[in-house]
Amino acid sequence: MSQTEISTLGEFGLIDRLTDSLPVHHASTVVSVGDDAAVLNYPDSEVLVTTDMLLENVHFDLTYVPLKHLGYKAAVVNFSDIYAMNGTPRQITVGLGISKRFTVEHIEALYSGIRLACEIYGVDIVGGDTCASHQGLVITITCIGDVPKGKAVRRSGAKPTDIICVSGDLGAAYMGLQLLEREKVASAGRPDFQPDFAGKEYIVERQLKPEARRDVIEALAKAGIVPTAMMDVSDGLSSELLHICKDSKVGCRVYEDRIPIDYQTALMAEELNMNLVTAALNGGEDYELLFTVPLSMHDRIGQIPGVKEIGYITDEDKGCALVARDGESEIPLKAQGWNPLAQENE
Amino acid sequence: MSQTEISTLGEFGLIDRLTDSLPVHHASTVVSVGDDAAVLNYPDSEVLVTTDMLLENVHFDLTYVPLKHLGYKAAVVNFSDIYAMNGTPRQITVGLGISKRFTVEHIEALYSGIRLACEIYGVDIVGGDTCASHQGLVITITCIGDVPKGKAVRRSGAKPTDIICVSGDLGAAYMGLQLLEREKVASAGRPDFQPDFAGKEYIVERQLKPEARRDVIEALAKAGIVPTAMMDVSDGLSSELLHICKDSKVGCRVYEDRIPIDYQTALMAEELNMNLVTAALNGGEDYELLFTVPLSMHDRIGQIPGVKEIGYITDEDKGCALVARDGESEIPLKAQGWNPLAQENE
Repeated sequence: MSQTEISTLGEFGLIDRLTDSLPVHHASTVVSVGDDAAVLNYPDSEVLVTTDMLLENVHFDLTYVPLKHLGYKAAVVNFSDIYAMNGTPRQITVGLGISKRFTVEHIEALYSGIRLACEIYGVDIVGGDTCASHQGLVITITCIGDVPKGKAVRRSGAKPTDIICVSGDLGAAYMGLQLLEREKVASAGRPDFQPDFAGKEYIVERQLKPEARRDVIEALAKAGIVPTAMMDVSDGLSSELLHICKDSKVGCRVYEDRIPIDYQTALMAEELNMNLVTAALNGGEDYELLFTVPLSMHDRIGQIPGVKEIGYITDEDKGCALVARDGESEIPLKAQGWNPLAQENE
Repeated sequence: MSQTEISTLGEFGLIDRLTDSLPVHHASTVVSVGDDAAVLNYPDSEVLVTTDMLLENVHFDLTYVPLKHLGYKAAVVNFSDIYAMNGTPRQITVGLGISKRFTVEHIEALYSGIRLACEIYGVDIVGGDTCASHQGLVITITCIGDVPKGKAVRRSGAKPTDIICVSGDLGAAYMGLQLLEREKVASAGRPDFQPDFAGKEYIVERQLKPEARRDVIEALAKAGIVPTAMMDVSDGLSSELLHICKDSKVGCRVYEDRIPIDYQTALMAEELNMNLVTAALNGGEDYELLFTVPLSMHDRIGQIPGVKEIGYITDEDKGCALVARDGESEIPLKAQGWNPLAQENE
């Protein structure tokens, strides 16, 4: 494909090209891109706002992340934050910092991934900012959503005896990243190198093209279940559980043998000689939903496909721990989150 | 002041420190920082959203921009976009990409500027994202505001015979930047160098610590004036006028001798042997309000301090031009915007 230097279009030309014929999905989108601010109309609900920033070589490595996938993921991780409040994502703004080595076609590929995600999840792109970067690619997406009044689910509502639930499976995105990194190292200096992902497609896809669990939010609503607390699993199960427990002033017990893990994740961990439970607890980027429900909801939860009960909430003084496979020994949960500033140089 | 490496706090520690005891100014701020998304409540109005991204060495140079000023400016330029829609800024989210050479105290200084701006303009900080950057400092602020239903002023409403108005004066921020750049060059390799800004305080302040024109929006409302089109002057008068004319499908005439220019701006242009009108037309970062009103509003506009009529809207086929001081010769207005990708290397 022919490549166009961004300087031939300039800022406004690039924005025109990226935002050409953007669809509007929502009546709440009154004014979209092309003015100082977007205008949204939310008469009977509460507005939700969330922001995520992605930086090249911190959050993504373009040697193995296709730009379209990157755009898709950048949008979806924001939708996931809105679903995690029990809301519906409606609009996003897109901030792009673009360095000179990117062409118009590169940025269009990135944007096409953002647009695809918006189409699939029914979200409008309503604005943004595009600027030159000396520093690689920078993507900041802010998502606006809504939730019926009083229905937002926070991190702070978990109560002792509540059941802890998680959707899907954990650790796959992290093991996918390990695989991609391994293949990157193996390919260095070998232009003919073809990575072999046979039998590992799932973990690669979980890393490169995650989905937000709209289906779970819809299933919960249909089943008449309102979680007492909820988060999406972006930094890892351990970290998110500690957030919920801290904000709810409770403790928790999670059973090691109930943590949902895919077969490919387990195989990859074995192949790389990594601890599987550590990967599932601390891996991050799963974008599954972690939530608590009253004990009385046990039967209804059982009706929802892909949701698993993994433990229960305790009084605060019991602390937060993983119950090992023997059913007795307990390992305290530790906060991870990122701390890359500790290891990396500018 | 003692400096703390960010790695000693980690992500969550840093966020806790930055967002400690954030005030809440608005009843519409239901849930602020500390959950997946903020929750806002806007029952009887339309919601406005705008985003700005600032990158080190593209939008700011830390050799002469104090971090607190930078934070203040990063917030204020977003407020300006909301005012330019005739709205009121209510909440912001703050995305920060931080490289290893910044300490906790640096980021606190930056954040203190953001908090000061929020205090002065009555805006709540409701969320954000903080991450490591290999690439210098990255700041993305998204501002949410509101406007009574149907009262948002867009770029597209200007009609032939409308009067073109602008607040304050133009070109000062640009000349302030030229001065700061000159002093930076002069100070290179001279640790004892003291820049002399005597008699030039205004243009330096316009560059380093701009204000958003809330006062003008309030004065217009008080006078019963609803502009037909409005923008804030961030890329330069010329560029913004062309935006309004394009979106409104009209032309315009602006009188060179009516463009408001401060005495310090003129002196600095003379000292640097630069064209003053070019600076005022294309300088950018003025954050003044450019708006159009029906001809019948002429007398009322005259009552508003600091607002000047600089020209009028024409039919589209007349094009967009500056009328020179002789009152006859016309110079077509040209779009500038940024195009730094044309000149800069990564």
